[in-house]
Amino acid sequence: MVKYPTGSVVPLRAAQRPGEKAVLKKASFSDRGMTLEQQINESNQYYLDERIAVVHKKPTPIQIVKVDYPKRSRAVIREAYFRQASTTDYNGVYRGYYLDFEAKETRNKTSFPLKNFHEHQILHLQQCLEQEGICFALIGFMTLDRYFVTPASFLIQAWQTWKAAGKSSLTLAEIEASSFEIKSGFRPTLPYLKAVDQIIADRKLEHGNK
Amino acid sequence: MVKYPTGSVVPLRAAQRPGEKAVLKKASFSDRGMTLEQQINESNQYYLDERIAVVHKKPTPIQIVKVDYPKRSRAVIREAYFRQASTTDYNGVYRGYYLDFEAKETRNKTSFPLKNFHEHQILHLQQCLEQEGICFALIGFMTLDRYFVTPASFLIQAWQTWKAAGKSSLTLAEIEASSFEIKSGFRPTLPYLKAVDQIIADRKLEHGNK
Repeated sequence: MVKYPTGSVVPLRAAQRPGEKAVLKKASFSDRGMTLEQQINESNQYYLDERIAVVHKKPTPIQIVKVDYPKRSRAVIREAYFRQASTTDYNGVYRGYYLDFEAKETRNKTSFPLKNFHEHQILHLQQCLEQEGICFALIGFMTLDRYFVTPASFLIQAWQTWKAAGKSSLTLAEIEASSFEIKSGFRPTLPYLKAVDQIIADRKLEHGNK
Repeated sequence: MVKYPTGSVVPLRAAQRPGEKAVLKKASFSDRGMTLEQQINESNQYYLDERIAVVHKKPTPIQIVKVDYPKRSRAVIREAYFRQASTTDYNGVYRGYYLDFEAKETRNKTSFPLKNFHEHQILHLQQCLEQEGICFALIGFMTLDRYFVTPASFLIQAWQTWKAAGKSSLTLAEIEASSFEIKSGFRPTLPYLKAVDQIIADRKLEHGNK
C-alpha cells in the first residue's frame, strides 16, 4: 500500500510482485485500481490544495422518506431512495471560468456508447454552454488507460445525430478527432485543466474572428 | 390555494380571509409561508426557464451505510447519515460568470448571528473568490420580509473579526450598509441576479481603476 499526498490509500499492484518485470512495466495509474471518479477527485483535491481551481463533485441526490432521531446520537436515515440527478456530476470555477462536466468510463476498446449519458445531462450541458460555461465530458477508456476531454458542443451534436439517425456510439477515432487527450500522471492524476486551457484558447480565437 | 407557474402549490393566507383589509395589506410573499430555500428554488426555476441563468441547489450530502435491493423494486437505503457539506448550497453560471452562494434565514429582527455560517462555507467562498467567482450570501430576515445579497468579501471580513475580536453578530444596519437589498416579487420570487449585476458592475469598475 502506498499513501498518497492527498491522504487516499491506493493499492499499488506492481509493488506486490517486485520481481516480475512485465508487471512492473504495466504499472500505470489505471493499475492502481482507481476508478475514473477517484482519479478526478484526487485531481480536484490537488487543484484545490494548489489554489488552481475549485471543482467539487456534487453529492448523489437522495429522496429521504424516514429519519430516526435516537437519543444521545445523531439522526439515522432509515428509508430513502436514489433520485436521478438533474445536472452533471462536477462543476466549479477556474480563473473566472465556470466549469461543468460529466465523467464517464467505459471498458470498451473501440467505441463509446452514447446511452452512457442521460438526456437531462445533455440538456444541462446545453444550458450551461448557452451561459458561456466551459462544458465537456471526461471520457475514460479504462482498459486502454486513455482519457479524453470531449467538448459539450460535439457531444450535443452526436446526441442529436443519435436521436435523428440512430447512430448510438462514438468510435474511438471520432473521439480522438474531436477531443483533447490527457495523459494520466502523478500530480494531478488527471490534468484535465490542460484541456480546459485549450478550450478557452479556442473560444477566444473564435470570438476574435467574429 | 394558488397554483404558480413553476408548478409548486403555495397557500395564500390572505385569500382565505378576503374581507379583512389589514390581512390583505400584509399579503406579502413571506405570507405565502415559503421558506427562503423555496423562494430561491422558484427563482432559479424561473431563471432556468427564461434561459437567464443556470443555478441549482446541491443535494444534501449523505453517507450511505446499508442499501437493500428488493426483488422487482428499486433500491432502498436502509441506513444512512447526514454529512456536513464541504461547499455552499448553490452554484451555477450566469453570462459567463461563476456564481456561488449560501442562503441563510433568520427570524431575528435587528441582527444576524454569524454562527449561522460554518467555517468551511466561509473557506469555500474565499477559495471561489480567489478564482474570480461571484460569491455572496443571500440573507433573509423572514419576519421583516427583507432580503439581502451580501458580498462574500464583506462576510469573510466579518467572520475574521468575530474570530479575532469576538463580535459574533452583524447588525441589520451593517448588513444594509454592505449589501444589496432585493425586494421579493412574483417572477422571479427573489430577483437576486439584479444584485449580481451590481456586483459585476462594481468589479469591472474596480478592475478599471487599477
